[in-house]
Amino acid sequence: MDQTSTLIEHIVEAWTQLQTEQPLVQCITNSVAANYAANVLLAAGASPAMIDNPFEAESFTTISAALSINLGTPTNEQMQAMQISAQTAQRTNTPWVLDPVGYGPVLKWRSDMVDELLQYNPTVIRGNASEISTLAGNQVLSKGVDSTLDSADVYHQAKVLLEHAECIAISGESDFILSKELDAVIQVNGGSYLQPKVTATGCALGALIAAYCAVTTPTIATIAAHTHFAIAGKLAFEKAQTIGQFNVAFMDYIHSLNPDLIQQYADIKILEI
Amino acid sequence: MDQTSTLIEHIVEAWTQLQTEQPLVQCITNSVAANYAANVLLAAGASPAMIDNPFEAESFTTISAALSINLGTPTNEQMQAMQISAQTAQRTNTPWVLDPVGYGPVLKWRSDMVDELLQYNPTVIRGNASEISTLAGNQVLSKGVDSTLDSADVYHQAKVLLEHAECIAISGESDFILSKELDAVIQVNGGSYLQPKVTATGCALGALIAAYCAVTTPTIATIAAHTHFAIAGKLAFEKAQTIGQFNVAFMDYIHSLNPDLIQQYADIKILEI
Amino acid sequence: MDQTSTLIEHIVEAWTQLQTEQPLVQCITNSVAANYAANVLLAAGASPAMIDNPFEAESFTTISAALSINLGTPTNEQMQAMQISAQTAQRTNTPWVLDPVGYGPVLKWRSDMVDELLQYNPTVIRGNASEISTLAGNQVLSKGVDSTLDSADVYHQAKVLLEHAECIAISGESDFILSKELDAVIQVNGGSYLQPKVTATGCALGALIAAYCAVTTPTIATIAAHTHFAIAGKLAFEKAQTIGQFNVAFMDYIHSLNPDLIQQYADIKILEI
Repeated sequence: MDQTSTLIEHIVEAWTQLQTEQPLVQCITNSVAANYAANVLLAAGASPAMIDNPFEAESFTTISAALSINLGTPTNEQMQAMQISAQTAQRTNTPWVLDPVGYGPVLKWRSDMVDELLQYNPTVIRGNASEISTLAGNQVLSKGVDSTLDSADVYHQAKVLLEHAECIAISGESDFILSKELDAVIQVNGGSYLQPKVTATGCALGALIAAYCAVTTPTIATIAAHTHFAIAGKLAFEKAQTIGQFNVAFMDYIHSLNPDLIQQYADIKILEI
Repeated sequence: MDQTSTLIEHIVEAWTQLQTEQPLVQCITNSVAANYAANVLLAAGASPAMIDNPFEAESFTTISAALSINLGTPTNEQMQAMQISAQTAQRTNTPWVLDPVGYGPVLKWRSDMVDELLQYNPTVIRGNASEISTLAGNQVLSKGVDSTLDSADVYHQAKVLLEHAECIAISGESDFILSKELDAVIQVNGGSYLQPKVTATGCALGALIAAYCAVTTPTIATIAAHTHFAIAGKLAFEKAQTIGQFNVAFMDYIHSLNPDLIQQYADIKILEI
Repeated sequence: MDQTSTLIEHIVEAWTQLQTEQPLVQCITNSVAANYAANVLLAAGASPAMIDNPFEAESFTTISAALSINLGTPTNEQMQAMQISAQTAQRTNTPWVLDPVGYGPVLKWRSDMVDELLQYNPTVIRGNASEISTLAGNQVLSKGVDSTLDSADVYHQAKVLLEHAECIAISGESDFILSKELDAVIQVNGGSYLQPKVTATGCALGALIAAYCAVTTPTIATIAAHTHFAIAGKLAFEKAQTIGQFNVAFMDYIHSLNPDLIQQYADIKILEI
């Protein structure tokens, strides 16, 4: 088997393991994504819990199989919870995903927190091209929380971020995942142009990466979550080309993914960094 | 008429009354459930308002026909609002429902608040089997906010909680409602195995119990709300077996329930406690 | 061309401009509306960002093309963000929309904040008939956040509010928009009786007005956003008469509106104030 086929086998195993273990995933996320990310995790096979207060953060992270931290609409209490949970995750070897929504000079409060959270070594950092490029030290003209850059143009820049995390994932028309373990970039194709028209899909993807991290290695987890989304997005678009119906169909396929569909539709390439 | 048929008549009356009165229901709920619970209440015939700050809690509870308190993702401000609103509800004889999401030793902050709120005598306490069992004093291995127990196995334990509330409701494959008034347990069947795959359905059910409490007795209200959900879930699953479409159909049937459907599909049994 | 046809031409131009510019719209909104309003803005062509903390409010409003402030479920931090962002919007000539959800004596905390925010001269004030009537100084028996009055009966009262804003918009079976520029009232017909059964549609409409304000005059923006909703609601109801499916279809038509549909279905009348 070539390296790509091996990866796809690992994705199938990870998906199967997710269904078996139904891992508890703590999500500290934003007000836009809370419901949607919980529904995506449930549909995908995980058990989400949006515990985001500082008074329960430590004890809850301790019993969680993975943690997802998203900086979309932080409150002071959530910020405290993020620090406590990230620190606890590092201490207890619990995998955790950092999604630095809106990272950049305009949104300084959250960006300072992201910088601080890096010390707790996230397992995976995921974001759109603008966020990852800025986090990698480049100056980017941002436009709120949507990307102004193309993922294919910035993934080379992200290599420096591998000093903080096992994987760096960049969403876009194609997704690119930098893996420290493989010393390579994995390109994941699929999805639909409608996907960025549904809010919080990126945030939900971050939570799904965390769920997969509970059952496999960071590299396989990140590729598996992106492939899960890419196939669901592609099949949903074949079924429905209008945004409301697409979103319903997307959730259908997040839930009904299976090994056959993964084998048939996974579209990944391994590139050099 | 036997006792079951009489109960079903009362459910029909309660549903009709809900449509007529469209009661104002204050919900202090979590970030995952806020939108979904509001949509369920609107579709079911009630008028929801998610007023959850401590500065308006007292005056708003005073004008509300019922109150729903849910501990899913509490903030400090919501915690203060819960205390004020629960106290106000008790003082003004406004029925109120307590949903102790995640109750247990891992989530101590909220659990302490639940213990405190019990002094204001909730009209109904509702939760999943793990939450109710723990609240009844048993040691349960919890897994976040999802249940690890079966409702059929724990409802006997819940009897001690009737010292705090008129009804105790336990969600599961079958729902069990302990009624102080009837000195009995009512088993409600229906729904679908897909229902727990949609987040916040339990939270929305708690809000719907509160809505029914505004128009009928606590016992009928609790049975009516569970029957409303059980029929909608059953009919939705007959129409759609994928999670996205099921959820759309579920909302359709929450809205289009009527006396004929209740008569035809209500599936309840009266058991001894 | 008569005045109505000219207005419809302007609506088409505004819609086209919205697709071209995809303006960044900052929304400080409630927990019920956050996801829904973001999805409506994305589907309509804008780029939403729910930045609602006081630490990033000033810098973010500075780069935003428009701002939407909604008082649905305020927190202390959001209240601070509202003040800062409204003040910043006024200073930087950024159009902003005020949605005084629940305005009235029962909800004093938010109502005091609304009174304070008026000093920063919102571009548009929008609400339901009860809210606008109360804001205009009338005593109204409120029922939570739903209206107890008919928009057709109160729009005359709203004239006094034009000292604070360029437009006053009142939602209802028909919508009425008072324009300072035109010194007239524009009635917008359409929608469906199911629309008030979907939570947060009013909140999302407020955000959409803000989005249009980024690309055209306040008067055209307010009429365009209401027409956008009215046509989507009307066509959605022709396609689906049940609440869950209606909501899916509504989002479909928010996204698939186009100049032909606007020309064919826009139903507006110009009245004297």
